[in-house]
Amino acid sequence: MRTVMPFTIRYSETDMMGVVHHASYLLYFEDARTDFLNRIGFPYRQIEAAGLMSPVVDLQCSYGRPLVYGDEPLIRTRVVCNGQAKTVYAYELFKCADDLEAGRPCCTGRSTHCVVDRDTFRPVSIKRRLPELYAKYEEVLEAR
Amino acid sequence: MRTVMPFTIRYSETDMMGVVHHASYLLYFEDARTDFLNRIGFPYRQIEAAGLMSPVVDLQCSYGRPLVYGDEPLIRTRVVCNGQAKTVYAYELFKCADDLEAGRPCCTGRSTHCVVDRDTFRPVSIKRRLPELYAKYEEVLEAR
Amino acid sequence: MRTVMPFTIRYSETDMMGVVHHASYLLYFEDARTDFLNRIGFPYRQIEAAGLMSPVVDLQCSYGRPLVYGDEPLIRTRVVCNGQAKTVYAYELFKCADDLEAGRPCCTGRSTHCVVDRDTFRPVSIKRRLPELYAKYEEVLEAR
Amino acid sequence: MRTVMPFTIRYSETDMMGVVHHASYLLYFEDARTDFLNRIGFPYRQIEAAGLMSPVVDLQCSYGRPLVYGDEPLIRTRVVCNGQAKTVYAYELFKCADDLEAGRPCCTGRSTHCVVDRDTFRPVSIKRRLPELYAKYEEVLEAR
Repeated sequence: MRTVMPFTIRYSETDMMGVVHHASYLLYFEDARTDFLNRIGFPYRQIEAAGLMSPVVDLQCSYGRPLVYGDEPLIRTRVVCNGQAKTVYAYELFKCADDLEAGRPCCTGRSTHCVVDRDTFRPVSIKRRLPELYAKYEEVLEAR
Repeated sequence: MRTVMPFTIRYSETDMMGVVHHASYLLYFEDARTDFLNRIGFPYRQIEAAGLMSPVVDLQCSYGRPLVYGDEPLIRTRVVCNGQAKTVYAYELFKCADDLEAGRPCCTGRSTHCVVDRDTFRPVSIKRRLPELYAKYEEVLEAR
Repeated sequence: MRTVMPFTIRYSETDMMGVVHHASYLLYFEDARTDFLNRIGFPYRQIEAAGLMSPVVDLQCSYGRPLVYGDEPLIRTRVVCNGQAKTVYAYELFKCADDLEAGRPCCTGRSTHCVVDRDTFRPVSIKRRLPELYAKYEEVLEAR
Repeated sequence: MRTVMPFTIRYSETDMMGVVHHASYLLYFEDARTDFLNRIGFPYRQIEAAGLMSPVVDLQCSYGRPLVYGDEPLIRTRVVCNGQAKTVYAYELFKCADDLEAGRPCCTGRSTHCVVDRDTFRPVSIKRRLPELYAKYEEVLEAR
């Protein structure tokens, strides 16, 4: 499964280069994950309700043509790895719907997440502690 | 007492106008408060150590000439009101040391803070729960 | 005219108090203005297309009950002053639709904007340089 | 050459997990680059003065133990690749001076930068357009 989410660019997310600042892309990734979890029926609050949190442990991002204020961008998201202890999301950003059609992302990225106990910050097994989420990930996985 | 703290402008704090985004100024105010509390010998962690937090309840900011990347700005800070339940800080920002000398701020602001219990978020009396901080504020107060 | 815009809270907009950081509210105000301009048929890019920009010159915000991650908040926006050189927006934030119904904002704010030449940063008359926008503001004004 | 820069954590850079939000690390990287350029005697404004800008084209970050508010962290920076068209910086973050001593980073990252024309956003040869910067990078390079 690949979700596609349109989003808007905030003025505050631009910088004096006149384009979106590179750190803002990480916020779009986070929005996309939130949306992804909602769509597979396991919103982030269920992770929290289990006394757990899901921090980023690894991040990679390649920037091409810059996003600018006024673009009507979209982000396409999938899960590419569903490990017992780690999940990897992949993102493709498109400046507009035409670029999505044409398969021309302006930015791609990946983020790896573990799940930790809220109080101790120690990693737990996703498979064991969040079996329903693990099963859903298994279902929607697009490893390619 | 008025503290003066130099600070630097991050590239990410600018926007496509080529100047510092107006929301970034609130981060400078927060840095200035942290510095102020350190200088009067009551760092923020002592507020936390007492099981308390100090949220902003009111904020006011007037923007004049914009700060730009590369400026070497300073922020001058004082406490203008020391209530039992609320503290008011005032800030003046200067684009450079010469402007500080000349008394030409490029931005002024005020923030009002209460102190709340960390768990219940209910306001407490600063005078009663943090008497040492209250006394220090009394000492350094510049109401004018 | 009062516009009502739902919005979502980003994880990155929270802080270690467990609530939305006070500076994030200014980003919601900005989103609300963008939305307001779109709805009255004068999107921000038309201001830019005229070689102009619209910086914030004054800001005021009063914070009540804090927004938290997972809230489904709304922001209600109106123009309360349409001067030749300055425009004042007023905002009311609500934690949920019920609070909007009941008229119980959790935060209120105002921002004043001028319009400046993009190259010189000098203020211009909105009435003269953007007569269409000025007329629209006049139409939707809710001074109360 | 490896530069070491102490830095402080802003309250606004934390999130409701109680730790520094992962996107904030990119701002520390940027601060570290600014500092690095200053120390080698080629401040960023010289890049701008040449009508050029230096965007991020690739980014990688691995997060270990989280930074928390109150830490007194340091960031160690070096240039690991000095290409004609691209420069790669590497970063190591340490929670405290002891961890720096012991070589125990809590986060590592890399960023790749090209240099583009300010107006066209087209990449240029660093070696040809900024020969002095290229030569300095050559001098301080630590490819390992």
